[in-house]
Amino acid sequence: MRNLLMKVSYDGTDYNGFQTQPGGHTIQDYLEEAILALSGEQVKITASGRTDAGVHARGQIFNFYTSSQIPVERWCVALNSRLPEDIVVTEAMEVPLDFHSRREAKRKTYRYTINANQFPDLFGRRYQLHHPGSLDIEAMSAGLRHLIGTHDFTSFASRKSTKPSHVRTIYDAWIETDTSMCRPGTRDQGLIHTYVSGSGFLQHMVRIIMGTLITVGEGKLKPDEMKRILEARNRAAAGPTAMGKGLMLWSVEYDITDGVKPDLWNT
Amino acid sequence: MRNLLMKVSYDGTDYNGFQTQPGGHTIQDYLEEAILALSGEQVKITASGRTDAGVHARGQIFNFYTSSQIPVERWCVALNSRLPEDIVVTEAMEVPLDFHSRREAKRKTYRYTINANQFPDLFGRRYQLHHPGSLDIEAMSAGLRHLIGTHDFTSFASRKSTKPSHVRTIYDAWIETDTSMCRPGTRDQGLIHTYVSGSGFLQHMVRIIMGTLITVGEGKLKPDEMKRILEARNRAAAGPTAMGKGLMLWSVEYDITDGVKPDLWNT
Repeated sequence: MRNLLMKVSYDGTDYNGFQTQPGGHTIQDYLEEAILALSGEQVKITASGRTDAGVHARGQIFNFYTSSQIPVERWCVALNSRLPEDIVVTEAMEVPLDFHSRREAKRKTYRYTINANQFPDLFGRRYQLHHPGSLDIEAMSAGLRHLIGTHDFTSFASRKSTKPSHVRTIYDAWIETDTSMCRPGTRDQGLIHTYVSGSGFLQHMVRIIMGTLITVGEGKLKPDEMKRILEARNRAAAGPTAMGKGLMLWSVEYDITDGVKPDLWNT
Repeated sequence: MRNLLMKVSYDGTDYNGFQTQPGGHTIQDYLEEAILALSGEQVKITASGRTDAGVHARGQIFNFYTSSQIPVERWCVALNSRLPEDIVVTEAMEVPLDFHSRREAKRKTYRYTINANQFPDLFGRRYQLHHPGSLDIEAMSAGLRHLIGTHDFTSFASRKSTKPSHVRTIYDAWIETDTSMCRPGTRDQGLIHTYVSGSGFLQHMVRIIMGTLITVGEGKLKPDEMKRILEARNRAAAGPTAMGKGLMLWSVEYDITDGVKPDLWNT
């Protein structure tokens, strides 16, 4: 028996989220079907966490147990040939038997992309929220900085959250802009990428943070009010939940050195 | 009666090319239907040229005549709300009545994108040819340079071409690479963007140039053999026709100053 760890990218547009659910058509279902087709084994994979319907991943991590003798370096290509073209496994390695993708995740980073140009970017349209109105990016950055640190994030969690504690730590959060597609002489502001990196995230947490930051960017909320919203510990104090399509699980990092290539864990 | 000129971007993946044809479902059909829905006029648009099925455009140009009194600055948003989300009109302006998008095009630039990483880039997969094998980019650049200048491009044209002359001028052609997505410690070579800018292009010309350059990149053909292929004036002398999905009409430039914003013409 071996414990295999894999890194997977997916375009979540056409799926009902990562985790298996009664409606089917999830990323997990397709991964488990591909493993079954390849190895003949009906496995249950464990991921670093779920992602919502329509949310994407650049570097989701999962692991599973297998008795298959297929060499570890063959798995990526063999699985990809059995997966839809919008799910791609990019790394595979053997890890200690007690390794667990969710419990041992030390840091997760999400990226949320807003297209603040007048027109949608049709080549990136599946991975962006289009917001043609003007946004105050400085104010959004200032608001975002209030979230760094250890806080009770109840105001930024779905009311459906059943977690016993809503205390999480955001290690870092920052905004990067890409103005390469702006048309000269227009109000185009380019792509606004917001990165949020933390110990773990509650249901809808990044999307509610983004919906609130957009309200700040529109000038309807002062950046310092993020503090008040945190302190309210009440979902009603925060802004709307931003659409899932702009969100991408960017990377998951672990703190282990045995039997793993370190480059997997830091990208 | 006014002559309106527009710039349009499209994702050609799901269309039967730009130009109206019996099978329907072309970019031109959707543009003419949107104009009909908006203005009530059944117009015939004239583009800078056609693009094949599956080929994309960042900056295609077309014009048409209208009696509509809708102000020119309203057209983009009004048309986009009547177009599928993979066709976006980004500029509109009035031009002299005798302006013709195809006849007056002075320079067209195409970009062809190869993903030379081991794994497909799922977020850009619709706009790239995936070539996981190693490519000699220096050799491809050297081969490409032989095409700059005025030549008879019969070897690089579809056998179905009915043009009386196959002489065209390539003003410039160059390769840019983007290694931002390469995984460390792998044979990943990143994205290889080939730009070809010329007076005009024959049917399949850029795709046959690319199919031949890939053969050069694979080491199966020496860069200097591009000269011999040009001189052969025979389609059989060149390499295969590369897939349409990697090709994008990047920009079309015109040489007029009356009644047009110059920034349209140089991007």
